[in-house]
Amino acid sequence: MKIQAVKGTRDFYPPQMAVRNFIVDGWKAASIRNGFVEYDGPIFEYLQMYQIKSGDEIVEQLFNFEDRGGRHLAIRPEITPTLARMVNQQINALARPIKWFSVPRLCRAERPQKGRLREFFQWNIDIIDVEDVLADAEVVYCSLDYLRSLGLTSKDVVAKISSRRLLAAVLKNIGIPETQLDSLYPILDKKPKIPVGAFVELLEKEIDNPDTVRMIVKLMDVQSVDDIPALVKLNDEEQAALDELTQVFARLKQMGVVDFCRFDMGIVRGLAYYTGMVFEIHDVAGDLRAICGGGRYDNLLSDFGGPKVTATGMGMGDAVLEILLREKGLLTDDSVAVQTLDYFVACVDDALFNRAVELTAKIRQKGYSANLNYKTNTLKKQIKAADSMNASRCIIIGGELKESNQLVVKDMKTGQQELIDADTFLK
Amino acid sequence: MKIQAVKGTRDFYPPQMAVRNFIVDGWKAASIRNGFVEYDGPIFEYLQMYQIKSGDEIVEQLFNFEDRGGRHLAIRPEITPTLARMVNQQINALARPIKWFSVPRLCRAERPQKGRLREFFQWNIDIIDVEDVLADAEVVYCSLDYLRSLGLTSKDVVAKISSRRLLAAVLKNIGIPETQLDSLYPILDKKPKIPVGAFVELLEKEIDNPDTVRMIVKLMDVQSVDDIPALVKLNDEEQAALDELTQVFARLKQMGVVDFCRFDMGIVRGLAYYTGMVFEIHDVAGDLRAICGGGRYDNLLSDFGGPKVTATGMGMGDAVLEILLREKGLLTDDSVAVQTLDYFVACVDDALFNRAVELTAKIRQKGYSANLNYKTNTLKKQIKAADSMNASRCIIIGGELKESNQLVVKDMKTGQQELIDADTFLK
Repeated sequence: MKIQAVKGTRDFYPPQMAVRNFIVDGWKAASIRNGFVEYDGPIFEYLQMYQIKSGDEIVEQLFNFEDRGGRHLAIRPEITPTLARMVNQQINALARPIKWFSVPRLCRAERPQKGRLREFFQWNIDIIDVEDVLADAEVVYCSLDYLRSLGLTSKDVVAKISSRRLLAAVLKNIGIPETQLDSLYPILDKKPKIPVGAFVELLEKEIDNPDTVRMIVKLMDVQSVDDIPALVKLNDEEQAALDELTQVFARLKQMGVVDFCRFDMGIVRGLAYYTGMVFEIHDVAGDLRAICGGGRYDNLLSDFGGPKVTATGMGMGDAVLEILLREKGLLTDDSVAVQTLDYFVACVDDALFNRAVELTAKIRQKGYSANLNYKTNTLKKQIKAADSMNASRCIIIGGELKESNQLVVKDMKTGQQELIDADTFLK
Repeated sequence: MKIQAVKGTRDFYPPQMAVRNFIVDGWKAASIRNGFVEYDGPIFEYLQMYQIKSGDEIVEQLFNFEDRGGRHLAIRPEITPTLARMVNQQINALARPIKWFSVPRLCRAERPQKGRLREFFQWNIDIIDVEDVLADAEVVYCSLDYLRSLGLTSKDVVAKISSRRLLAAVLKNIGIPETQLDSLYPILDKKPKIPVGAFVELLEKEIDNPDTVRMIVKLMDVQSVDDIPALVKLNDEEQAALDELTQVFARLKQMGVVDFCRFDMGIVRGLAYYTGMVFEIHDVAGDLRAICGGGRYDNLLSDFGGPKVTATGMGMGDAVLEILLREKGLLTDDSVAVQTLDYFVACVDDALFNRAVELTAKIRQKGYSANLNYKTNTLKKQIKAADSMNASRCIIIGGELKESNQLVVKDMKTGQQELIDADTFLK
């Protein structure tokens, strides 16, 4: 009986697994470099937990089920709720500030499309209990530090940065009531993805005053923080929000990544839960979905029943990233090795095969990687096998061992061979 | 609203995550040392796939659900069916023999108990298309190579080895019809876990002839392959099965791990699908469940609709292993570091804080790990923070930078301090 993989999931054969490891290992290295420590949670949680942050609509996007105890559970579509639950549970025992990262496997019951799969991996970094925007800047820095380490430059990727706090202040300033903000954000979030006409139409459905609509369109096109005061007369609260964002850029300059960064009022992020700086990193060409996104969400822990403790963070999926790296030639099928091997043991004489088995085990015990051919074969075929495994050296067991107890050690790169006494080898 | 984790799952706070990484990284290193390459599959598959190998009873042990397309899916309880599916799908494109490993997250809807959780990690290694028992021996070797690398000796763990082929041959020899074998295996598998009396009772329910029952009890107690011919007069098929098992032990001797190995006719493995050598590694004291188990399963690929290609492999979970390592003192809360850091940047002067931000980013860009305090504080408190992160060095930014552009670099182990010019540091 032939069975297929489920649509929207991926099989990681060794070449695809090598790519996944290349990405995930890079995420881990960047996290550690930037002083984050790793955590993880279960692959499934109570369904209810995902409704707190994202409302009932999220249920549609979840793989959910009931266990034999009648519990309503769901495979995790994101790890932030788990983070909030875990931090809340131990809030009094954990040393703060908390700088945690994770590289969870996540699942969403979406229609698969380019850069969007039903099962994917996502890098998450979060800094909890640092009120200063230095933490916001550090989250942007860490994301860029990773992308830069892959060879991407400011010609390839751009961090578009804005502030929910500033946006809210300015919108209230031009007459939008506080209660209307949450329904306005998803519309503003659509702006970069749709034509201006369609955007204006959506706004007009939500807002009666054509002047306000025109003002919003203008605001969303502002290219620098400094241009805002010319458009809107700022009160103290708005000025404070603006100063905060200016400070984020100052920090990013000190960190040496400001070339990658740009103010963009159009970065809103769909979710209601952001409270301060928000950002997304995009390919400069703008052909792909966001590479990553995040921001400050100071109410998350308290929304999950915990104390009022501030937080800022970021999530980066593997799918869009892989597409971008391939497009830029920074990841090819040949650039990540499926296997490398220190030694390949080739035996060309049946009578010596036991010695090949012995030697292979001895090499492994010494901590080196080794394979042997499961039977004697022509040297040519075995060298080919060694090559396919990217072996550094091939040890040939044949006449020399019989005659003078010597191993032939062939350097697979240079082709040079040397004879080594079998008893002293790896001693 | 307070929400808990689901019973039987684990939260991996940084200390627990460090332990998980210690185990999983060790599995990966042993796999690579032994010439395996990594693969992985999706976290969920068609429910039906798990019924092929394990029958309908498995459904009870699965977290299964229906997606919006009406597909019956299940979170994977093991990865072997995925392996069979993946290999079958590409059987003509894959270079053989195939030596693959994986460290999947798996879920079973079981009642949680000691060493058995509803969510766990499992190391899997498999060798496909090597008929020779050398591959069986290599699977046992690789498992022991890993355990030995942790510091476990033959006084701690024992590999109990038997053969399904030999067992089947001998059972047929003493009059058990072939059709009865599959219902007999689960009973024999229980033998080490229940008193002799209860074992005999179970056998008597299955077998009418008291002589046959007595013979089986005797056979299950045989301590050496060499003792079998004295109990049963062997025909050619039985002799061949016995020779094969003798050869497994000969290979394990060549590999230098025979001290860890013992013949045990009582190792049967519950599942019907094994066809040759079978083994389990146990703690010598016998207090715990098996640390790992596996064997040869030559029909698996064909059971999943593929060609008749041989296979042998092993699975090792993290739960029993962790209990054993803690019991033996080979894993303690202090033996795995939650975090290590190359540099901690401590600023003791507000006016210099921007320089601390700059420097931290510079260190990270150079590839070293670094953290800074998010605000100036007393030196004592910052040194304490550096200590809690296991920082190797602490850089103190204060008067020396102001006066002579110098950084104080403190070695956290020796306590020694040196002055380094800020411009040449890490140049």
